[in-house]
Amino acid sequence: MKNLLFDFIAKYISLTEEEKNAIISTDIFRTVKKGTVLLKEGQKSKESYFVLKGCIRAYYVLDGDEKTTAFYTEMEAFTPPCVINKTPSEYYVACTEDSIITVSDADMEVEINSKFPKFEIMCRLLSEELLAKQRIDFDEFKTSSPEQRYLNLIQKRPDLIQRVPQHQLASYLGIKPQSLSRLRARIVEKRS
Amino acid sequence: MKNLLFDFIAKYISLTEEEKNAIISTDIFRTVKKGTVLLKEGQKSKESYFVLKGCIRAYYVLDGDEKTTAFYTEMEAFTPPCVINKTPSEYYVACTEDSIITVSDADMEVEINSKFPKFEIMCRLLSEELLAKQRIDFDEFKTSSPEQRYLNLIQKRPDLIQRVPQHQLASYLGIKPQSLSRLRARIVEKRS
Repeated sequence: MKNLLFDFIAKYISLTEEEKNAIISTDIFRTVKKGTVLLKEGQKSKESYFVLKGCIRAYYVLDGDEKTTAFYTEMEAFTPPCVINKTPSEYYVACTEDSIITVSDADMEVEINSKFPKFEIMCRLLSEELLAKQRIDFDEFKTSSPEQRYLNLIQKRPDLIQRVPQHQLASYLGIKPQSLSRLRARIVEKRS
Repeated sequence: MKNLLFDFIAKYISLTEEEKNAIISTDIFRTVKKGTVLLKEGQKSKESYFVLKGCIRAYYVLDGDEKTTAFYTEMEAFTPPCVINKTPSEYYVACTEDSIITVSDADMEVEINSKFPKFEIMCRLLSEELLAKQRIDFDEFKTSSPEQRYLNLIQKRPDLIQRVPQHQLASYLGIKPQSLSRLRARIVEKRS
């Protein structure tokens, strides 16, 4: 699992053995069971996540209903907005599958970044890349019909359709579960 | 205008006179007329923008229709995804009002960041903050009805409602112009 993380980091910066050891010594690897809640609404947190294996879901509870807004799978990193804004979390983070993740702490990151300025560069590059990716996702969501959103998903993240429950997928796509069923039936019909 | 920029930067890092002079010497300030197109679909670019005064709009042209996805006003910074991904732009960027902006180049940023590592820290902090803000906006969009989205806008960015044409505002909110008119009428009626 360490090597998976180092391969990911190598996309941004090259690490010396000393730097690799510094990362390992921080004890950031966690094995988490399906259903584990990593962050609750109202909770304060300093933790960022990176998924090595498995699937993590972000969701809100609004009027008693769960509204899923994001799924993070292999090689995806994220920091809940509450960590950056130093406010209580507005959403939940939970494991949709048994997962292996890294959990890093904001204070720890400041320490590592001051010791190895190279990590500062990696964090900047990664944040810029995630910002661009999220902008494209948001724009696509805004400019697409529910059917186009589902077709985009088939193209961009086909694994999600198999991996996560349909009602979570529906709210992730901003549509009602019944509409998702009808929409899927329509697409299958068109293609047959 | 320089002081507005320095005040913004001071939220992230403190600048020496030498560093301020380094910024000024880069000649990044631009005065741009309403209607100026800064970036076109299909164009490659290395430019990031920061709005000192005015309003900049990002929009796609899909099946001949303009679909507005973002407005950037005073003290807002953005880098089009095509700059980060080194791909042709998928959208247009244009000035909705006469504006004063800074335009900075990716190569210039690399040079400045290597000379003044402090700027690297600022870029990371700013990207993280924008990423968190955009995540919240995206989640709100996904979990809200059109009416809630409009009410959110009244609360969060009331100036936009006065500043930009209604048809642009409608597509920004992901609704049809006629629906926006009806929705506004309904809200006015409820409040009277």
